Amino acid sequence: MTKEKKPVNVNSVGVVKTEYFSFNELLLENGERFGPITLAYETYGILNKEKSNAILILHALSGDAHAAGIHENENITGWWDAFIGPGKAFDTDKYFVICSNILGGCKGSTGPASINPKTKKPYALDFPLISINDIVNAQKRLVDHLGIVKLLSVVGGSMGGHQVLAWLVNYSDSIRSAVPIATTIKHSPQQIAFNEVGRQSIMADVHWKSGNYYDGTVPSKGLAVARMIGHITYMSDKSMAEKFGRDKKEAGEPFKFTADFEVEGYLRYRGDNFVKRFDANSYLYITKAMDNFDASKGKPFQEALRGVKAKVLVIAFKSDWLYPAYQSKEIVKACKLAGIETTYCEVDSAYGHDAFLLEVEEESHLIRHFLKKVYYAYEVTGNYGE
Amino acid sequence: MTKEKKPVNVNSVGVVKTEYFSFNELLLENGERFGPITLAYETYGILNKEKSNAILILHALSGDAHAAGIHENENITGWWDAFIGPGKAFDTDKYFVICSNILGGCKGSTGPASINPKTKKPYALDFPLISINDIVNAQKRLVDHLGIVKLLSVVGGSMGGHQVLAWLVNYSDSIRSAVPIATTIKHSPQQIAFNEVGRQSIMADVHWKSGNYYDGTVPSKGLAVARMIGHITYMSDKSMAEKFGRDKKEAGEPFKFTADFEVEGYLRYRGDNFVKRFDANSYLYITKAMDNFDASKGKPFQEALRGVKAKVLVIAFKSDWLYPAYQSKEIVKACKLAGIETTYCEVDSAYGHDAFLLEVEEESHLIRHFLKKVYYAYEVTGNYGE
Repeated sequence: MTKEKKPVNVNSVGVVKTEYFSFNELLLENGERFGPITLAYETYGILNKEKSNAILILHALSGDAHAAGIHENENITGWWDAFIGPGKAFDTDKYFVICSNILGGCKGSTGPASINPKTKKPYALDFPLISINDIVNAQKRLVDHLGIVKLLSVVGGSMGGHQVLAWLVNYSDSIRSAVPIATTIKHSPQQIAFNEVGRQSIMADVHWKSGNYYDGTVPSKGLAVARMIGHITYMSDKSMAEKFGRDKKEAGEPFKFTADFEVEGYLRYRGDNFVKRFDANSYLYITKAMDNFDASKGKPFQEALRGVKAKVLVIAFKSDWLYPAYQSKEIVKACKLAGIETTYCEVDSAYGHDAFLLEVEEESHLIRHFLKKVYYAYEVTGNYGE
Repeated sequence: MTKEKKPVNVNSVGVVKTEYFSFNELLLENGERFGPITLAYETYGILNKEKSNAILILHALSGDAHAAGIHENENITGWWDAFIGPGKAFDTDKYFVICSNILGGCKGSTGPASINPKTKKPYALDFPLISINDIVNAQKRLVDHLGIVKLLSVVGGSMGGHQVLAWLVNYSDSIRSAVPIATTIKHSPQQIAFNEVGRQSIMADVHWKSGNYYDGTVPSKGLAVARMIGHITYMSDKSMAEKFGRDKKEAGEPFKFTADFEVEGYLRYRGDNFVKRFDANSYLYITKAMDNFDASKGKPFQEALRGVKAKVLVIAFKSDWLYPAYQSKEIVKACKLAGIETTYCEVDSAYGHDAFLLEVEEESHLIRHFLKKVYYAYEVTGNYGE
């Protein structure tokens, strides 16, 4: 438990510290045995005596373990701080919240930038081609390590939602509920295509050198372009129009292909910022894991869900064209066919895919209410209908 | 007139030849005098005695003068061959069809790859920052050169549509009708953003060298990524799903980031093919001209259209999310407010933006009918309501 009693504001979990959990080996989906593995993680709130109030938060492509609060001597709040804290959707006065950086990531967990103990050099492309199921299997080890037999909920948006669905299929006995947000059972060709172009952009960078760039210049231009493509897909036509219009920046350097429009400056800024904090090889591995993921494992999804008893809340956003609402409805339909108690809400937001980070009020309301219902069922009955 | 009597099939204009028209100088929108300028062009059909049957076809970003028929000893039909020929939408038994490669292009017209007579080297970034209006002003010179005082119609999709709108605003006395297809009055931030990411990708290529690559390796990887981004935006989520699904390619080389999915292979193929036939600097100049274009010149578009007497047919496609139908409706609304006789049709197609090249039957029907109405009005009355 990393929470300390230094609240930065009334609703913050305060100053938090990232912790690390290591284990020797994981049998990967491709049959390979891989290890050792370290997962960076943070927790907020207090685990109750019955260990019945733990919620696992699952992050998206560029996320990390730092979901809430601030780090000592830093000013950056966690990526879902608006949702996690005293009185917030994930009420830390009530729940014990865990968030870990995924296997394959570059924020403290073992990934392609980590040192390969056999060669004493970064893995680079010797890192195995991991899957979303591998990522979830590693998380399960962390949850076991924390002594939690049954999670109150697993919650995540976008690629976090892929992980939620993998938990639902692979570990349904270990969760009481699941909240997949703005996600899909499997990527469509359009979603694969956007990821593929990002990968191509990284691999086209002369500094990528088949992934062996760790002792020299990193492929920052290729990664920046990949991130810019991502940012376009995270916003909606409407939200971009509202945010930028066709406003021009003040005249910059006298170059023909200067960022004239505000939107160009914004994309360049976001791209340049991203390369400071993200590893290009992690981007390749994680996007490939997303594209290869199929929660239904080739069957109709309802068959993969057979016997699942967890309650499910599915949230989608109207203007999200990267993970369109029809994909969330496919999840809902399969859950209902599998006899799962499922709630669906399509939030009327203009923010596009980013809405899952930005629609604080409505999303919080939905999550708070859902968690209360699930938790209350446990508190009153002492079990969960099992 | 380049048509020769060697029809390759009953509806083809047969073997055609690209011709060239040069003039000394053009006053650009930015105040610069630029020249000499050559425009590559092709014509199909026969110009009648009254010179009243000429239609100017305006191409999109990657198009060229070769819109119909085939070239001697080549097998590639023109990019709009399905629409241009005897009995087709642009019936060459009836109309005289002109198509020219735009100023700034790389298919025979003067562009950044052309030799600067002052330096005897390619212009590269010494090429002026041209606008859509400049492109249209150059086309006007060609039309004057062909002795045509009044075009029966100007027609084009996508960036071709930008040019149609520029003709409508700048040269309304020189056209009897206009057909803007799948286009917009001005680019939205999202449209600018996609172009900007393409430009960033080109400029990130180590071989781009600030545009000075003509005597060495071309920035093919950066240009390929730009083209891949384009291709995603030209298709719809649905058309991609129908074309590719999640089908995997046969196992290729044993590399982790191989193109596993059909859609990945398709994008790589299209990207690689494009770099063989397109100049990266032209891509920069043309996309920038598109982004800077505003047919309304900062006013409400209906004011820019005041006094226009040409008839207008606006065509949009339901699944086109790059140039969404709402943008075509904005054109229609402004035309109606300006008192222009305007017809609008939103074609129910799944092809996305590519529909303007692929929806042959329905689009042909609309165009054929519209042209007939405009032409008939002239034939019968000898004037056009002027």
